[in-house]
Amino acid sequence: MKIGILGLGTVGGGVWDILSTTKFQEYDIKVKTALVRNKSKYISYEEQGLNLTLDPYEILNDPEIDTVVEVMGGIDKPYEYIKYALSQGKHVVTANKAVLAKHMEEFLALAKNNNAALLYEASVGGGIPLIKPLKQNARINNFYEISGILNGTSNFILSKMSKEGLEFADVLKQAQEKGYAEQDPSDDIDGTDMARKISVLSSTIFKKHLPLEHIQINGIRHIEKQDMDIAKKAGCDIKLIAKSNYENNNYKAAVEPVILKQNSIFAQVSDEYNIGMAKGDNLSEVSFYGEGAGRYATANAVVSDLLDIYNHEAIEHLAVDFSSTKVNPILADYYVRLNDTNKIEELKAKLSSYNLINLHKGAFIAEKITSSEIKNYADEINVANQNYFIARLDDALIPSELL
Amino acid sequence: MKIGILGLGTVGGGVWDILSTTKFQEYDIKVKTALVRNKSKYISYEEQGLNLTLDPYEILNDPEIDTVVEVMGGIDKPYEYIKYALSQGKHVVTANKAVLAKHMEEFLALAKNNNAALLYEASVGGGIPLIKPLKQNARINNFYEISGILNGTSNFILSKMSKEGLEFADVLKQAQEKGYAEQDPSDDIDGTDMARKISVLSSTIFKKHLPLEHIQINGIRHIEKQDMDIAKKAGCDIKLIAKSNYENNNYKAAVEPVILKQNSIFAQVSDEYNIGMAKGDNLSEVSFYGEGAGRYATANAVVSDLLDIYNHEAIEHLAVDFSSTKVNPILADYYVRLNDTNKIEELKAKLSSYNLINLHKGAFIAEKITSSEIKNYADEINVANQNYFIARLDDALIPSELL
Repeated sequence: MKIGILGLGTVGGGVWDILSTTKFQEYDIKVKTALVRNKSKYISYEEQGLNLTLDPYEILNDPEIDTVVEVMGGIDKPYEYIKYALSQGKHVVTANKAVLAKHMEEFLALAKNNNAALLYEASVGGGIPLIKPLKQNARINNFYEISGILNGTSNFILSKMSKEGLEFADVLKQAQEKGYAEQDPSDDIDGTDMARKISVLSSTIFKKHLPLEHIQINGIRHIEKQDMDIAKKAGCDIKLIAKSNYENNNYKAAVEPVILKQNSIFAQVSDEYNIGMAKGDNLSEVSFYGEGAGRYATANAVVSDLLDIYNHEAIEHLAVDFSSTKVNPILADYYVRLNDTNKIEELKAKLSSYNLINLHKGAFIAEKITSSEIKNYADEINVANQNYFIARLDDALIPSELL
Repeated sequence: MKIGILGLGTVGGGVWDILSTTKFQEYDIKVKTALVRNKSKYISYEEQGLNLTLDPYEILNDPEIDTVVEVMGGIDKPYEYIKYALSQGKHVVTANKAVLAKHMEEFLALAKNNNAALLYEASVGGGIPLIKPLKQNARINNFYEISGILNGTSNFILSKMSKEGLEFADVLKQAQEKGYAEQDPSDDIDGTDMARKISVLSSTIFKKHLPLEHIQINGIRHIEKQDMDIAKKAGCDIKLIAKSNYENNNYKAAVEPVILKQNSIFAQVSDEYNIGMAKGDNLSEVSFYGEGAGRYATANAVVSDLLDIYNHEAIEHLAVDFSSTKVNPILADYYVRLNDTNKIEELKAKLSSYNLINLHKGAFIAEKITSSEIKNYADEINVANQNYFIARLDDALIPSELL
């Protein structure tokens, strides 16, 4: 097996390191070439026998390279390179949920037609063996629900707010200083990253594509200390959770903050850790917990995929239904908090046909509603900058417990 | 693939049911014959086309049967049949941790010499995909610790004591009435079942056999409400936990009650649920959670193994080191409770070289000690019926937190 790596950053360098350990001397696996943006930074790799190139096509057109690892990030260029690699019959291993969520249909067709493998264990849940065990069990067991805490940055922020009683903005600033959050953290805190991951998981486990634009997404950008305080006073916590569900021929999907009891497994997932959970007919509930990111955890997942290709255990091609399907938001009880006291009365008036429970002057619970209905009404009354916070109440939580 | 099933009880019947669903029409898999003790009870299976036999050798000598599923329980007969099947080159899938913990060396040699697969996903953690993901990751990542709550009966009893404030004997009686506990529950409550499982996991993940007789085992037979009360007052819980560890060329293994904080993942594993956790160099911590038993969860694991054999993904033979190695008990802080007030003073005197923290007249904590030392001293002073309770304090717990 001869490998080309697109991107020699944190994960790409970790893959090289793992494959250089003595464990891999017995395998006929060699990383031949890596795409970098600047050769001088990576001279130490060159000294260890790795070819460096600035031209991706030196990898993609190399007949000796049978497997391409894409760990460069972004969407447009990875799309171009993955497509090209698969069309040449090269196997592809990627950690890139963004490009997968957008282009999986085209990738799967190319992989099948060119008898190439397309594996992506590292794309969801970093170091957690999640996709492969679920994919394999989906051969036997009908899964009808997948959920998870699948973004380390947002979970780190919420954990710190919960433990230390801090405001969102202060924690975000700290996280950025420590490198736990990007300078532009939008994908993480607005829920986009998790929506991509739940879309990839749904394609893999349900064999049904749930497009990003149909997934209800509410992030944590507007959460305040007062929201966490209300939850904690009631023995609860707030977590950003992705969930997709298939029942009665009806798909539901959402990424949104959830208020859940502290004595639940999800509430114990702290800091940058992730968890993925699936429910099925034989396996009523299985969960997988571990590091959501990190150099060696993520690289370990990439190498796991590489070994499956090496051992010819990755041949089965996913048959995913990409036809357009209505994806519904989740019907539940929702916590709503809005600091503008005039607007909150206007919003409550709009929601008068629902059962509302007042928590204090700025916050209430609306029962049996969807977040999209609440957001539509908030738009109608022009809440400035959409500056309100909504969170779903977990099924195990009774609204009155928050009083 | 033609299968013979040894034992058509809960799990065996579940395997038949799953393989009879429409999902499996596309596979060339057929269950041909099942061993039963009494044909009349299983006539409905015969009507669906399954041969029933009272003679195991009708399966073991059938040249058409290439794969044997052993789900009959016990040790001696499964040992005989599995050995025979492997020596005939038949693949074996078993859910039987007792026979594996005792005879794995012989089984692995036979499997290798006869080019047969030996798989046992169902033997540990019932429906949790645990063994395969760990085994696969062990190819890449050096795991140095495995731990888990791996017995549903004992965990059900401890959960109920914790939630409802009941005495051990009352909960055990209820569990037996509901069928959650056997009439002779010794293997479950004394920790033997979990010791077998941690031995099987250690062989699989560390590639090192830790024999049962070298694993320190303390069960929950002598736990009382007062022990749980002390833990709960301190925001803790008590769980029966198996753990094995490999560091600095030194193996440690124990199955024992552990006092751990309620805000930990293990404390959230309730009732008959199980969890398995592994720590390694690339994967700092991964956990797998789900149903520890149950007809379809366990049968799902058996069928998962069968599909791996069907897809020729089970060929790699485990190379386990069976040489004799010293296995040490765990050095930690231990909670000790003894109702006989004379004996407890005698025991404390014996332990005078250790730092002791008194909790109340019948209970104390001994710091930095092993459970085997405490048990040896208790034996020396002849505690009647070994009627004392000891529990390890989790690493995250400081002894003074229990005051």
